Amino acid sequence: MPLTEFELIRRFFTYPSPGAVLGVGDDAAIVRAGRGRDLVITTDMLLAGRHFRADADPGRLGHKALAVNLSDIAAMGAVPRWATLALALPRADARWLAAFSRGFMRLARRHGVDLVGGDTTRGPLAVCVQVVGAVPVGQALRRDGARAGDDVWVSGTLGDAALALECARGRLRLTPRERAPLNARLDTPAPRVGLGVALRGIAHSAIDVSDGLVADLGHICERSKVSAVVEFARVPASAVMRRHLQRPAARTALLAGGDDYELVFTAGRAQRAALLRLARRLRLKLTRIGSIVRRGGAPVTVLGAGGRPMRLPRTGFDHFD
Amino acid sequence: MPLTEFELIRRFFTYPSPGAVLGVGDDAAIVRAGRGRDLVITTDMLLAGRHFRADADPGRLGHKALAVNLSDIAAMGAVPRWATLALALPRADARWLAAFSRGFMRLARRHGVDLVGGDTTRGPLAVCVQVVGAVPVGQALRRDGARAGDDVWVSGTLGDAALALECARGRLRLTPRERAPLNARLDTPAPRVGLGVALRGIAHSAIDVSDGLVADLGHICERSKVSAVVEFARVPASAVMRRHLQRPAARTALLAGGDDYELVFTAGRAQRAALLRLARRLRLKLTRIGSIVRRGGAPVTVLGAGGRPMRLPRTGFDHFD
Repeated sequence: MPLTEFELIRRFFTYPSPGAVLGVGDDAAIVRAGRGRDLVITTDMLLAGRHFRADADPGRLGHKALAVNLSDIAAMGAVPRWATLALALPRADARWLAAFSRGFMRLARRHGVDLVGGDTTRGPLAVCVQVVGAVPVGQALRRDGARAGDDVWVSGTLGDAALALECARGRLRLTPRERAPLNARLDTPAPRVGLGVALRGIAHSAIDVSDGLVADLGHICERSKVSAVVEFARVPASAVMRRHLQRPAARTALLAGGDDYELVFTAGRAQRAALLRLARRLRLKLTRIGSIVRRGGAPVTVLGAGGRPMRLPRTGFDHFD
Repeated sequence: MPLTEFELIRRFFTYPSPGAVLGVGDDAAIVRAGRGRDLVITTDMLLAGRHFRADADPGRLGHKALAVNLSDIAAMGAVPRWATLALALPRADARWLAAFSRGFMRLARRHGVDLVGGDTTRGPLAVCVQVVGAVPVGQALRRDGARAGDDVWVSGTLGDAALALECARGRLRLTPRERAPLNARLDTPAPRVGLGVALRGIAHSAIDVSDGLVADLGHICERSKVSAVVEFARVPASAVMRRHLQRPAARTALLAGGDDYELVFTAGRAQRAALLRLARRLRLKLTRIGSIVRRGGAPVTVLGAGGRPMRLPRTGFDHFD
């Protein structure tokens, strides 16, 4: 006998919601942000065949569907608090759901996020997550605060997820040993929530790298009415990436590959020492890759060998490409 | 040239967000609930082929996708404040999007809701909406507050949307003049937000009728650990419904048809006069259809001719039917 929706919800998506006044099971969840808190709201939809393969590992998919939303919250400097999940499934497959919810909930618990609401329905596989976070009033990191003279920083390494995707599509051949860490970046990204919170009062602007460095830094420039100059040689690359950096596909992945979910942010020069201390405390690489200048020409210029502007192959992932 | 995602978002989904600190255009929206407010969070996903036809009128679809979420907020007694919208579309069709956003935003403005975030992507047509509302701390209407001795009330009339669906599926024949008001109930439901807010401090429990009267009242009974007895003759029916009430399909629609988005609620007998005054003030029919009793037997019993319990054809809409 097929499971009914209510049984499914109860079995796989009812968890204690210690941070909620009322969790799953009513018309809506009730939560309390606390005094002096702004709320930060984001949503993302992942579709089979578009953002992941229909036969993707459900545990990793559960992780990623939440991670991409936590990354948006991180880029605001907020603490993620509550999530809702709407799921369309071709059939009520208990094993798939168990694995999906394990991946989702493991990441949720790691960040203290309560799953407070949901909706399941039959249809082509699709996952829509919404996350609500909280931040002290006025302290959110925004895209529109970059100023000429700011340094441009980025966390971790860039382009690894895009390299993994190039391999999966057969456009690039790497050894299995090279692929494993790249696949982990693509399938189970680590949202930089701790970094985002720590950047409050330090960064002037921030964004997460979901569409690629050039495109996302370009969003900061556009909203802040400034331009950015990045030195290619400074852009942090993983060991695998460095090994293949002579290939155009790798350089494209580094500068324009989406799905890394690192943070790009800008901060005044006076913050350099503080940011290097922060990197040590978080055990997360933070690299200064360039600077913000007054608006002019392209939003983002990348300087290559000899300080010459590089031609950028494409400026990022467009969802209607 | 196809529109890019960013152009689409700017063109059709960027509206002033007077109630938000920061609206569409950053990683996430920033909003402020105000002191002493609980937040109420809900989400619903509508899929082409499942919840609506792929060729459905986009304006009505925009209305309905928001309305079903506002209805959940209404059932909590909260004021809807902010919405996010994730949209999967087979192609970036400007005319379709213009009509969809008109339908969505007209209803949003009517209820003072700001569209603060979104995500668009290419894929099989799917609409996922989340709404966050606010309610004074501790005053939300929940499903778990019904008490033995309560009256059971319902707003408006029931089963009209289900009758429209029966017609659309060719299982019932009605005249065009009969169908028009039923189709309006199905396509552009009016969420009972004003009623929900007014029921604070009056109702002991509430739910919206999205799965059918028997199923939804059953949820109240289950969560409140009580049972309910409903008199069939009292269940409010529209003129068209009354005309066809001899047909089993019509009786099923009245008792078990989903998609009406009326509110079912329970309240003490002392509130009868207050509720009738409220009905006059809101110009919305409120009908007392039965009472809550101590738990025993079926969660919901419907008494028909001669006070005999009716056999209920099915107990509601299951999303994995």
